[in-house]
Amino acid sequence: MANIVKSGFKGKIFPVNLEAKEIDGLIAYPSIGQLPEVPDLAVIAIPAPLVTNILREIVIKGIKNVVILSAGFKESGPEGEQLEKELVDIANGANLNLLGPNCLGFVNSHPPLNLTFAQADCNPGNIRFITQSGAIAASVFDWCEQNELGFSDFITLGNKSTLGENDILEYWQSENYKNNLPPIVENASLSRPIGLYLESLTKGKDFLDLAKKISKVDPIFILKPGKTKAAARAMQSHTGAITGEDAVFEVACRQVGITRCDGLEDFFDLARAFSWENPPAGSSVAIISNAGGPAVISAEAVENEGLSLASFDEQTERQLVEYLPRTASIINPVDVLGDALAERYANAIKIVLQEPSVHALIVILTPQLMTEIESTSRVIAQASQQFKKPIFCSFIGGHHIAKGEEILNQAKIPSFRYPERAVKVVAAMWRWQKWRSTAAIDTPQPLTTNNPDLESLIFSSSKDSKALSFEEANRTMYLTGLSTPLCQVAKDFESAASFPQATGWPVVLKLSSPAIVHKTDVNGVVTDITNYEALKLAWNSLLENKRALEQQLQTTISIIIQKQITHGVELIVGIKRDLDFGPVLLFGAGGLYAEILSDHNLLLLPATADQIGNFIKSSKVNPMLNGYRSKIPLAVDRLIEMIGKLSRLVYCKPEISEIEINPVVLTETAAFAVDSRVILSPALKLQK
Amino acid sequence: MANIVKSGFKGKIFPVNLEAKEIDGLIAYPSIGQLPEVPDLAVIAIPAPLVTNILREIVIKGIKNVVILSAGFKESGPEGEQLEKELVDIANGANLNLLGPNCLGFVNSHPPLNLTFAQADCNPGNIRFITQSGAIAASVFDWCEQNELGFSDFITLGNKSTLGENDILEYWQSENYKNNLPPIVENASLSRPIGLYLESLTKGKDFLDLAKKISKVDPIFILKPGKTKAAARAMQSHTGAITGEDAVFEVACRQVGITRCDGLEDFFDLARAFSWENPPAGSSVAIISNAGGPAVISAEAVENEGLSLASFDEQTERQLVEYLPRTASIINPVDVLGDALAERYANAIKIVLQEPSVHALIVILTPQLMTEIESTSRVIAQASQQFKKPIFCSFIGGHHIAKGEEILNQAKIPSFRYPERAVKVVAAMWRWQKWRSTAAIDTPQPLTTNNPDLESLIFSSSKDSKALSFEEANRTMYLTGLSTPLCQVAKDFESAASFPQATGWPVVLKLSSPAIVHKTDVNGVVTDITNYEALKLAWNSLLENKRALEQQLQTTISIIIQKQITHGVELIVGIKRDLDFGPVLLFGAGGLYAEILSDHNLLLLPATADQIGNFIKSSKVNPMLNGYRSKIPLAVDRLIEMIGKLSRLVYCKPEISEIEINPVVLTETAAFAVDSRVILSPALKLQK
Repeated sequence: MANIVKSGFKGKIFPVNLEAKEIDGLIAYPSIGQLPEVPDLAVIAIPAPLVTNILREIVIKGIKNVVILSAGFKESGPEGEQLEKELVDIANGANLNLLGPNCLGFVNSHPPLNLTFAQADCNPGNIRFITQSGAIAASVFDWCEQNELGFSDFITLGNKSTLGENDILEYWQSENYKNNLPPIVENASLSRPIGLYLESLTKGKDFLDLAKKISKVDPIFILKPGKTKAAARAMQSHTGAITGEDAVFEVACRQVGITRCDGLEDFFDLARAFSWENPPAGSSVAIISNAGGPAVISAEAVENEGLSLASFDEQTERQLVEYLPRTASIINPVDVLGDALAERYANAIKIVLQEPSVHALIVILTPQLMTEIESTSRVIAQASQQFKKPIFCSFIGGHHIAKGEEILNQAKIPSFRYPERAVKVVAAMWRWQKWRSTAAIDTPQPLTTNNPDLESLIFSSSKDSKALSFEEANRTMYLTGLSTPLCQVAKDFESAASFPQATGWPVVLKLSSPAIVHKTDVNGVVTDITNYEALKLAWNSLLENKRALEQQLQTTISIIIQKQITHGVELIVGIKRDLDFGPVLLFGAGGLYAEILSDHNLLLLPATADQIGNFIKSSKVNPMLNGYRSKIPLAVDRLIEMIGKLSRLVYCKPEISEIEINPVVLTETAAFAVDSRVILSPALKLQK
Repeated sequence: MANIVKSGFKGKIFPVNLEAKEIDGLIAYPSIGQLPEVPDLAVIAIPAPLVTNILREIVIKGIKNVVILSAGFKESGPEGEQLEKELVDIANGANLNLLGPNCLGFVNSHPPLNLTFAQADCNPGNIRFITQSGAIAASVFDWCEQNELGFSDFITLGNKSTLGENDILEYWQSENYKNNLPPIVENASLSRPIGLYLESLTKGKDFLDLAKKISKVDPIFILKPGKTKAAARAMQSHTGAITGEDAVFEVACRQVGITRCDGLEDFFDLARAFSWENPPAGSSVAIISNAGGPAVISAEAVENEGLSLASFDEQTERQLVEYLPRTASIINPVDVLGDALAERYANAIKIVLQEPSVHALIVILTPQLMTEIESTSRVIAQASQQFKKPIFCSFIGGHHIAKGEEILNQAKIPSFRYPERAVKVVAAMWRWQKWRSTAAIDTPQPLTTNNPDLESLIFSSSKDSKALSFEEANRTMYLTGLSTPLCQVAKDFESAASFPQATGWPVVLKLSSPAIVHKTDVNGVVTDITNYEALKLAWNSLLENKRALEQQLQTTISIIIQKQITHGVELIVGIKRDLDFGPVLLFGAGGLYAEILSDHNLLLLPATADQIGNFIKSSKVNPMLNGYRSKIPLAVDRLIEMIGKLSRLVYCKPEISEIEINPVVLTETAAFAVDSRVILSPALKLQK
């Protein structure tokens, strides 16, 4: 409550406490019912078992907004989970806006209201934070104070029993919120960046739709652990959050313009950068340094992060020659030399910033004997006012440079102790800028098709099996309009031997069963069969391999003979229905290479043919499709068509939870679905 | 000079200056010749053009050790380069130990001598720094002062005109140096870590041999830019250093136990960690935190960095249950909850450190309202004294936590603002520890073979061509003892058509020329030819593709027909002679995948069969060799043999600058060199 008073809150405050008559100089009331009026908001900070009753009183009083700071709910075990369920029922019944429980409250800077129990002041500013972890909030408060960073909203979600990140983001999109915003902060960026710390997403699809709209205007940066099994374990024992597949989340962020942070350092670095600077208009960076070494390190980081070193035009070079000593480097990175005073820095900065090809500037300073640290900071601040281009600093050292950093902080110029951090931040800002200036905001509508044959095929498949048989999957692909190589079930060797007469050599022989995920695991594939003797050998060895399997598995197996498609590239195409984000396309190098080499590219569906085309272009395997070495490009159009058809199939058949074609063989004229698997969701099948 | 005096130097100082009679209270002499005795060391800080004459006077006086601080030499252009050449000639002629020019001097803490012009004090300690960049030195000084880090030696190399990093490292291995070392610093690590900032290596092979010996005792961490073209450009305009191939340097570091830094942040972080803590004895890390979020982030980092989260035994869990509140997490990462006071931290830390499976501890603190920041720091310091295990901290925040960090610094416990940084450091320390407890110190002697046929083949190859023809390369492999598939030059279609009668199908047809590096670039390969019609088609299309090439190129081309090896995995095996480090082995997935998928593994040669075996095991393609899915492993022994033979070939034939076999086809019984290229160094050929 001290925080509320200290924050300069102008409204009335009514403490409620059974025993105290007065708290911090305010009259305390023994119960909610006895309050003299109906407050806009109730804040609960009592032991968990007592919360339910109080919440009921709040409903009776007619209060609509509630914050529950108390811990001891879902995060603490089965009992707490039960208590939380009761809260949710009450809140839903009365249409309450309920934040928490197990949260740290929130801070508004418009009107000022600090409703947290963290031990730090908060400066007003333009950053908006949403965090699921209260502990992170405490660190962010302390860090923001030291770095003179301010925020306009700071919300801790706690257990997200009712209000979640989507509700907050939606509110921030409302006219009501926007009309009450304070003006843009002086010297800060023109946007109102949003920082998110989330351990789980409540409704992934909705979150993405919201984020996509917001990202067009304001940058969103997110820290969301969950990449590895170890982290997932830690998370379950901490907040009971269950994570979806991280790779899908990663690609989802990229597709909607969200910057994903690698760790806390990224998170804090981006907070400052997005709050204080506008994103660069292009990828071209200039570096000015009084030290060769750090300039080299930064130049290296610039290329590694996908940025480029600006090339100066003649006029800029001429001016640099005029204003810098003879031994200075006038090629980017500019070395103003170890004896540079503030004035030399000032000249170099102005000359470089007026160069049209420079989109962002990084100024590096090491504390040499003559270095004017504070004056140089002031000179940078002036240049930042004069030119519209974003400036980032790296003053490298300890006590000496700290004074310079303070001046930079006051001027709202982000500075970093290590130059590679500055580069990383510029790269993230540029990625966002590029995304928002090119990404289409509209999501394509999924097209669906209807095919009664397909319908009956899927429903006639054996009820207790989740996977279609090879023949069923192959027919599904055929009915969906995909090219499939000629094949047939070979009942005996004679029928197998007659097959190549029609199709020619080479052929492939495989053991097929819905229960076998990877045929090569059971030595179930022989390829490159070019004559009858080889076919006979292959037939016998497959029979032998079959006999080595469990009795029950053997009964599910048939032998397939298939025309082998040569002179093509093996690819993998799959679609998986993600629990959070819906259908996701997987594409990459196929065959045996699919699993051991990491060319796994993901794309959230639905997508337009153009989007699919660009997606294929960005894959590692792409050079092999586009006339790599050989001059004849493969039929990428056919591949895009194939993916479009599979996408429609998945949208019109919600029973399908997963499709995988491995390999797709792409030749100069066609894309063949050589080996397809279709996995159904039995639950959905039964529903229908 | 103020620095020399301030550092507590006990010896005599003689200033030399043409005009001044007295400098800083010391009598100044007008010339070297007039000095009353012969000093141990001369320091030169006058403009570059005057240095040569002074150096001659120094030689005449009989001074043996010289430091030249003056800039304006090699780094400043052709004139300076000439001046530097003169210095080197004088120094070599008189057997001088010359440090610089363009350096910042050096610091010794035994006896104390600060011979730099940086503006910072330096604490005595156990770190030894060598830097090629003087500017970095200034930042390191300032940073070390703030972080209370001390060093025993600090050497700036400047232009390395005569003394380089190897000379310093060698001196540090000498008895003379070791006998004068100060005792181990209290509370610090038992080693004397070496930090290197280098932009180029002077003698790579010698450096590695030295580093390997040192790394067995003391950790070496190095920051060496040069990974990208941009950085190489910046470096050339700064110090004129020429870099070798960075990937080779990367693997060289790994092989001799050096920790390579990703950037300045890594460099500073490792300096503290190696200086203050001993490396963990294993990879198992415990995390104690008062906040769930950062614990999750750290747990994630632990797995990503190749460490593991320690599993606690029953006794540890029981004790944690006893001493921690009910809702705390007693599974690693341990969550002591937001209201943890110093005592709760103390209990958790002690319980966890006595658990045998814990090799390192990371303590995370966020500044909650009740958190006792300073007392918690003290409690950690006590535990660090009591237990021998390394402890790393991450206090996350701003002003509030700074006081805690100071206490940790004094107790020599490394702390990091971001927990992922702590994890990264532990991982690097563990990698070093693992290396030094397992790596063999002896380098295997390269075995050479002699084969007169081979000799004559290489020398009969056309004098003006750097590459052997396909036939010559193929015969070289055969003479080296490698398996090569049957093949012949086909003069006409008839001779091609008769080839499969002896070998069987399928066959491969290729255009071959020493001038064609990648046959598929010119559509010069047809594989999977299974019958005469297909052979005819292939023959005609190759003839057509040949006619599409330049006239001159056409004359160098012959058509090769080769038995196709099926049922094997395509690999690439190459050896390149690196300018700095000698022969380097390249191994990975082969064929078309070699270039587009990044499975490029490097190993410095010579290596033992065991080392080669382990190297192959660590490649991405390895699962395909070792019975991946199919149960029959491929003939990896044959592959190791092949690499051994190639290695010997390269050592006995220095004329060979590069060998590449792509693909090697590895089957269940053999390793076939299917397509080999041999590049000669014409210069060496002519020498002989």
